[in-house]
Amino acid sequence: MIDTFKQLLIGPPLPTGRIADERLNKIRALAAFSPAALSSIAYADQEIYLGLVVAGSAGLSLAFPIGLVITVLLVLIALSYLQTIYGYPGGGGSYVVSRENLGELPGLIAGAALLIDYVLTSAVSLTAGVEAICSAFPALWPYSVEAALLLLIVITVLNLRGLRETGTLMAVPVYLFLAAYLPLLAYGTVRILAGVPVVSAPTVAPAAVPLTAFLVLRAFASGCTAMTGIEAVSNGVPAFQEPQAKNAGRTLMVMAVLMGVLFLGSIGLIQSWGVVAGADETVLSALCRRLVGSGPVYVLIQMSTLLVLAVAANTSFAGFPQVATLLAKDGFLPRQLMQLGDRLVFANGILLLSAATAALIVAFRGESHALIPLFAVGAFLAFTFSQAGMVLHWERARDTRWRLKAGLNGIGAVATGIALVVVGVGKFVQGAWITVLGIPALVVLFLGIRRHYAGVAEQLSMARTTALCDLPAPRVVIPIAGVHRGIVDAVAYARSIATDVTAVYVEQEPGSGQRTRERWGRWWPEIPLVIVSSPYRSIVGPILDYLDETDRNYDDGQLATVVLPEFVPAKPLHALLHNQTAWLIRTALLYRRRRLGFQRAVISVPYHLGR
Amino acid sequence: MIDTFKQLLIGPPLPTGRIADERLNKIRALAAFSPAALSSIAYADQEIYLGLVVAGSAGLSLAFPIGLVITVLLVLIALSYLQTIYGYPGGGGSYVVSRENLGELPGLIAGAALLIDYVLTSAVSLTAGVEAICSAFPALWPYSVEAALLLLIVITVLNLRGLRETGTLMAVPVYLFLAAYLPLLAYGTVRILAGVPVVSAPTVAPAAVPLTAFLVLRAFASGCTAMTGIEAVSNGVPAFQEPQAKNAGRTLMVMAVLMGVLFLGSIGLIQSWGVVAGADETVLSALCRRLVGSGPVYVLIQMSTLLVLAVAANTSFAGFPQVATLLAKDGFLPRQLMQLGDRLVFANGILLLSAATAALIVAFRGESHALIPLFAVGAFLAFTFSQAGMVLHWERARDTRWRLKAGLNGIGAVATGIALVVVGVGKFVQGAWITVLGIPALVVLFLGIRRHYAGVAEQLSMARTTALCDLPAPRVVIPIAGVHRGIVDAVAYARSIATDVTAVYVEQEPGSGQRTRERWGRWWPEIPLVIVSSPYRSIVGPILDYLDETDRNYDDGQLATVVLPEFVPAKPLHALLHNQTAWLIRTALLYRRRRLGFQRAVISVPYHLGR
Repeated sequence: MIDTFKQLLIGPPLPTGRIADERLNKIRALAAFSPAALSSIAYADQEIYLGLVVAGSAGLSLAFPIGLVITVLLVLIALSYLQTIYGYPGGGGSYVVSRENLGELPGLIAGAALLIDYVLTSAVSLTAGVEAICSAFPALWPYSVEAALLLLIVITVLNLRGLRETGTLMAVPVYLFLAAYLPLLAYGTVRILAGVPVVSAPTVAPAAVPLTAFLVLRAFASGCTAMTGIEAVSNGVPAFQEPQAKNAGRTLMVMAVLMGVLFLGSIGLIQSWGVVAGADETVLSALCRRLVGSGPVYVLIQMSTLLVLAVAANTSFAGFPQVATLLAKDGFLPRQLMQLGDRLVFANGILLLSAATAALIVAFRGESHALIPLFAVGAFLAFTFSQAGMVLHWERARDTRWRLKAGLNGIGAVATGIALVVVGVGKFVQGAWITVLGIPALVVLFLGIRRHYAGVAEQLSMARTTALCDLPAPRVVIPIAGVHRGIVDAVAYARSIATDVTAVYVEQEPGSGQRTRERWGRWWPEIPLVIVSSPYRSIVGPILDYLDETDRNYDDGQLATVVLPEFVPAKPLHALLHNQTAWLIRTALLYRRRRLGFQRAVISVPYHLGR
Repeated sequence: MIDTFKQLLIGPPLPTGRIADERLNKIRALAAFSPAALSSIAYADQEIYLGLVVAGSAGLSLAFPIGLVITVLLVLIALSYLQTIYGYPGGGGSYVVSRENLGELPGLIAGAALLIDYVLTSAVSLTAGVEAICSAFPALWPYSVEAALLLLIVITVLNLRGLRETGTLMAVPVYLFLAAYLPLLAYGTVRILAGVPVVSAPTVAPAAVPLTAFLVLRAFASGCTAMTGIEAVSNGVPAFQEPQAKNAGRTLMVMAVLMGVLFLGSIGLIQSWGVVAGADETVLSALCRRLVGSGPVYVLIQMSTLLVLAVAANTSFAGFPQVATLLAKDGFLPRQLMQLGDRLVFANGILLLSAATAALIVAFRGESHALIPLFAVGAFLAFTFSQAGMVLHWERARDTRWRLKAGLNGIGAVATGIALVVVGVGKFVQGAWITVLGIPALVVLFLGIRRHYAGVAEQLSMARTTALCDLPAPRVVIPIAGVHRGIVDAVAYARSIATDVTAVYVEQEPGSGQRTRERWGRWWPEIPLVIVSSPYRSIVGPILDYLDETDRNYDDGQLATVVLPEFVPAKPLHALLHNQTAWLIRTALLYRRRRLGFQRAVISVPYHLGR
């Protein structure tokens, strides 16, 4: 029944041979790798606005300058990642680049940062998407957590099904988004240049706090979240059509330009028009409303914002399982993460990401603003490590123009390193500390997991096994709860494998032992039955004690085998009506280590009830 | 570790011989059996008040008359239960009396009603107790659900420990409560009789609805919750000192008188003084405040109200597991409910009651007023059935004065029957329907459970076993995940019980099968290894298919035994780092029924990791 439901939800299993090796042209590649980067204006604008509005109109007048600095940084990072694309045509994720060039520990730090970054991309995109739609329909605000979780469930199920066939479908929101915002921003810019008077705006509230350098830095730090999606293209080089590196490089450049235009354009218009957002609206929504009114065009734009953010969240569902699998292959994460699921996707990684995202959405009450301080630290840490790694990569390679390449990566590393410090310090108290502590905690976990696997591998090595020895025929003990049809098969089985068979009955009610002995004697007079009393009414304890005692008495170096008559109800729900004694005994026997060496074997002989 | 925590929480296990047979004198018996009855004024007064206040002062002027009718009913029920005490000196709970005299179905209906009634007593008492203390400290109102759950946890743990040693302690709140309220009511009555002018009261809001007969009936129905605890004494006759019936009877009478005095006194004063309660206060609290001000005496009275209500909730923890055990003994509830726990209490019944109470508290947001409509139906249904049963009991017994006794019980049955109809109809829409539907649903469940047990008993009967047959030596199949130290013991064990041994390896990655075959041949060249491929990457499915196929090929009427090498990590948490393949295979094998008759035996051979 569970299988049927699973198939309905995610589709029938696919054979391993069906792993597709599809290549993307530039148009589809842009749609595949850019959503996280492009959609970031939805929350980055908002964060710059919220960071500055507390300092009144003087604060807001710095929005565009901050936007400019971020755009310059964006250009530096883009140029830097262009080098990565040529240096790692096989796909240069931060984990791989850091590990190969800087060493294991930096690689693990980058890996931890990446994992955290993917979870936050997913959580921030979903909450920001819900906020875009709530801005259009304020009645939805109270349900923002539920709405974000619903979106998350849809995305999770789609990814568990495997998204290949819907790849083209994913491109629609991205181009819809571009088709909505590019003309909108052009229209706004033209109106300003044409000198059309700005519609009377609600005046900004007076400054609540003075405009300090720290406040500006913090606004800059928040705005840096705009860049979190930029490394996607360099991860995905192998998915491009030939010539791969060239196509990927061009796509990266187009993406960076689009991102710069969207970001600078929107921030510039917000500042020029003096756009102010109320409590239940994002500043981007307020900007749209100012330009196109509150009619159907506005609603359509908010819908396209929601959709592109949902697609952005979806990109994490490709990236996270991939990094988790790489870490698992190197023994730093549980092996289950590298298992291909029924639909040829890393289902465990998808489920883990989904659970982590849901936890963040609930813990931060669905507010993207509360999540943002955690966000950029992971991304910028991964950037810095990966670009510093690239500098060393070029230095080793020493191919043509390696100095230029290393120089560009070096500038990128320094710039993102500075941004990392600004983000970490500026937002530390508001939540960046969670990421700053979370990354080393993850690294410690990675190392602990590898240590465990190494220990297991050593213990399982056949190298330590010198000779195989034969075991004598087992002694068998059968715990019985009474004389009934359910134990007949177990007794027969015990006799088929051993001659030394004993039954044991735990007496909870005085007198029941004698009655059981009489009934037992009628059926199996030749098999001894031992009655042990249980003053504390426990069943498992007395059986364990009896087994220990009997092993001591025999003193043959063997542990008696236990044959458990297991009673299987016709329907799973019926199990609620029966004591799970066999299960308890089996678990106690299997998981209690009695001594070194050969452990006690436990034989389950099921007896199935017909109804 | 779990064991240590459990012992810390509920204490070390007690031997069965320690079941105490303690007898209560009248003073302690009153404390043991009366809390639910006496404390009911805390919510019954409130309900009558809330039911009438909507009709303004005209409505409130009916409070005392309604109180009088309820008191008359109380007297009739008390006289009726007095007969039960003499008729059933061994303890006459509604389930036993109904079952013996009216038949099985009425017994089950009474049993279902009682179980529901116990859960509601517990939930209503706890929420009303929290409301008493919130009236004194209104800042606590937002935390009323949490407070009620906290109380519930404390009571649950105390009951799991076994309450014997604290029996005397339980008497303190009851006598404290009497010591607080009896003088208070006397003082109020004296002041009214002495003609002390009533302090100017806040005037009652004008009538919101007209004073209809239905409204009066509904207020009466709500007030009837005052009587829900009255049957406790007749259940507990065996706990009294000799002469048991006489002592129990006297205690019942004292309890009824105290209850009448408390109830009529408080309702009378509330009406005479025109006490009106605000939104965040109970009317009983408002009455106390009017009489003694808001000083420490008032707070002390509210504390004693909370305590006595907590003790009242506690009485359900004695009654519910007892009734559940009786039903379980007759096969109507899961057998686990009759297991004596470590501390000689019916731990499963206690936990079930606690869970049900918690669910009610949460579902009804901790408001006693919302729970009340569900409450009285169960109690009055049980009353009616039990007293009707007593009429038949006397008719059959025909001892001295049987006509008088039967008459008293008959009057009781008719009176509670009428009250039952009033309560069921008057409160149907507000929530009584839940109980009205819940009781038959429980009865259907009871019958279903007994049908299941009867079916199981028939299938397990040795009567159907004609002859015991011997099994041949088993064929053994060992599923392996690779050649490593963890399978050595399993192979050795398999060879100790069988000569026909085959290993089977599921190939998920192409090529891994050949590698495994080579390694296998180095260690066990004489044992055949079968490689099965798994295009869908599943492990369990191909193993099941292989077993089916091999059984078909042998065609010897046997199912191959499976020897599972089970890999046990040193710490339970480490299990997260390994695939639970052995567990999955074992579960699939045990719970999948392959055919009629003898099922497949599964042998677990554990290999314990040292770290």
